[in-house]
Amino acid sequence: MSADPLIHETVLTGDRTTGPLHLGHYAGSLAARVRLQDRCRQFLLLADAQALTDNADDPAKVSRNVLEVALDYLAVGIDPAKSVICVQSCLPALADLTMLFLNFVTVARLERNPTVKEEIRLRGFERDVPAGFLCYPAAQAADITGFKASLVPVGDDQLPMIEQTNEIVRRINRIADAPVLPECRALTAPVGRLPGLDGKGKMSKSQGNAIALSATADEIRAAVNAMFTDPGHLKVADPGRVEGNVVFTYLDAFDPDKAEIQALKDHYRRGGLGDRVIKARLEDRLQALLGPIRARRSLFAADPGQVHDILRRGTAIADVLTRQTCAEVRRALGLYHLNGAGVPSV
Amino acid sequence: MSADPLIHETVLTGDRTTGPLHLGHYAGSLAARVRLQDRCRQFLLLADAQALTDNADDPAKVSRNVLEVALDYLAVGIDPAKSVICVQSCLPALADLTMLFLNFVTVARLERNPTVKEEIRLRGFERDVPAGFLCYPAAQAADITGFKASLVPVGDDQLPMIEQTNEIVRRINRIADAPVLPECRALTAPVGRLPGLDGKGKMSKSQGNAIALSATADEIRAAVNAMFTDPGHLKVADPGRVEGNVVFTYLDAFDPDKAEIQALKDHYRRGGLGDRVIKARLEDRLQALLGPIRARRSLFAADPGQVHDILRRGTAIADVLTRQTCAEVRRALGLYHLNGAGVPSV
Repeated sequence: MSADPLIHETVLTGDRTTGPLHLGHYAGSLAARVRLQDRCRQFLLLADAQALTDNADDPAKVSRNVLEVALDYLAVGIDPAKSVICVQSCLPALADLTMLFLNFVTVARLERNPTVKEEIRLRGFERDVPAGFLCYPAAQAADITGFKASLVPVGDDQLPMIEQTNEIVRRINRIADAPVLPECRALTAPVGRLPGLDGKGKMSKSQGNAIALSATADEIRAAVNAMFTDPGHLKVADPGRVEGNVVFTYLDAFDPDKAEIQALKDHYRRGGLGDRVIKARLEDRLQALLGPIRARRSLFAADPGQVHDILRRGTAIADVLTRQTCAEVRRALGLYHLNGAGVPSV
Repeated sequence: MSADPLIHETVLTGDRTTGPLHLGHYAGSLAARVRLQDRCRQFLLLADAQALTDNADDPAKVSRNVLEVALDYLAVGIDPAKSVICVQSCLPALADLTMLFLNFVTVARLERNPTVKEEIRLRGFERDVPAGFLCYPAAQAADITGFKASLVPVGDDQLPMIEQTNEIVRRINRIADAPVLPECRALTAPVGRLPGLDGKGKMSKSQGNAIALSATADEIRAAVNAMFTDPGHLKVADPGRVEGNVVFTYLDAFDPDKAEIQALKDHYRRGGLGDRVIKARLEDRLQALLGPIRARRSLFAADPGQVHDILRRGTAIADVLTRQTCAEVRRALGLYHLNGAGVPSV
């Protein structure tokens, strides 16, 4: 039996701490992270500093959600003995690296970054884009390289961030004339983003079309009942559309019995299968998935001191690693260095 | 006798570490700093991180000149027992504060900053301006507020940086709903910038029209001999122009006997006073000024370990202060806080 090809990889991933996570995050990344933590070294960054880049007017929200996202991680089965969970803004070496990296990327290059352009458009910033927001690709490059991550799970829309990171890495390695930082590769998700309950775009808390990971049984039931199916499928006997039918999209994502789902799709297309039946099946699957997550989340939420302690330990580990990387980069570039004897070694 | 009005002030000043300092720096700021260190609390920042914003391709130059500028400080009489001399890039709290501040200023505001606009023009950056360079007003705001400086000695062209800093301070204090950071005031120099030897613009090493603080007696003599006077003053008997005559500008700056200089100017204007006479007088003054500076500089340069030790001690003091400020800002904004018990106090 050959060794797992991921065994030597270091994965960096994480979330902006702007709100609790939802089923879309679970399908798109959290489930994969739970599997990854058994296969390689994994760091999960609670990206509160990045969340501030477009939430500067509400730092309390960003701070409060550090705990909420951590609870979501623990609830889905992220194990702090296997994955390092750490708080971005408590890692000064990442700020140090970011400040350094900003010198190795031009304003024009940041403005051309397709991900940043699209996100600026979505937020309606136009000329009022906060400088921190424009600069966040350099901060992401610092996050990735600070942990010397080799693999970064991303959606297709985030691929330009990986390219931006590797551009900075190559420029620094060229100036240092040494491979001080590794390039990273994208680990793209095999499945697309989960649509919202209304079928309009991706699931998003701000769009009100999401199911929170902490959703109660009643909330799950109500969400499935409200779910978009096929507006032309008025009577049970009518043929129905499966494409764009959110219930089937979710069944594809969460029902392990692919053959039965295929049979249900065929039946639905022919006519004679009511929305009630497929919704009942989906609800069963979601209750079975989210019930244990909700229960674990409640247990951890009842003891926030324990969660903060997990974050403190993870951040302490991350602090050592990122400081070490920062020191290596500074040394490789020949920056001024105060050592114990007061005599720089550079 | 009333107390010195500066006694409660904290002054932050410093220099980009891109090369040794020259007579223009002495006249424009170093001499004032030597006086200020007896009147208030003074921090001198060796701004290597800022120097990197437009020297990313040559970090070794920036690093090497940390020592050179420190030697210049000590040579002119900056006393490390009175002034704290510290190395910017070795103060991670300044990077942390900068990253935070970048969220409180827009890209458009940075691009409108007149000082930044002019410096981008001078450097011919156009669209290739490094992101770190565009962002450096936020880094300066971090420097100033990190030390809670109340007074910042600046030239007129730097006044927009003070305004930019205070804008960030006000925005943070408003969001924190508390006066966590003080606003600062500019301390503008009473004298203008010293022109170069050639009378073209200000003295600048890159223009080759400067006298280094480490200049030898021969270099000083040669510099004064090459100095621009009045191209119309061909014969000693001719009337000469004093305005724009670099020798008289320097005599105004460095000769303490104002009455004698006034008499020399009158004589020069009437005719009958040769350039040789005024140049000899200026050379005497400069040799008298720079001789002891050169001697002190040589003494310190012979013992770089001692200088690095001074920087290490100053940076250690600055590290404590700037970390404290950073922690106060984070706390006031309610950012996530890992304390010893692992339970955030926010």
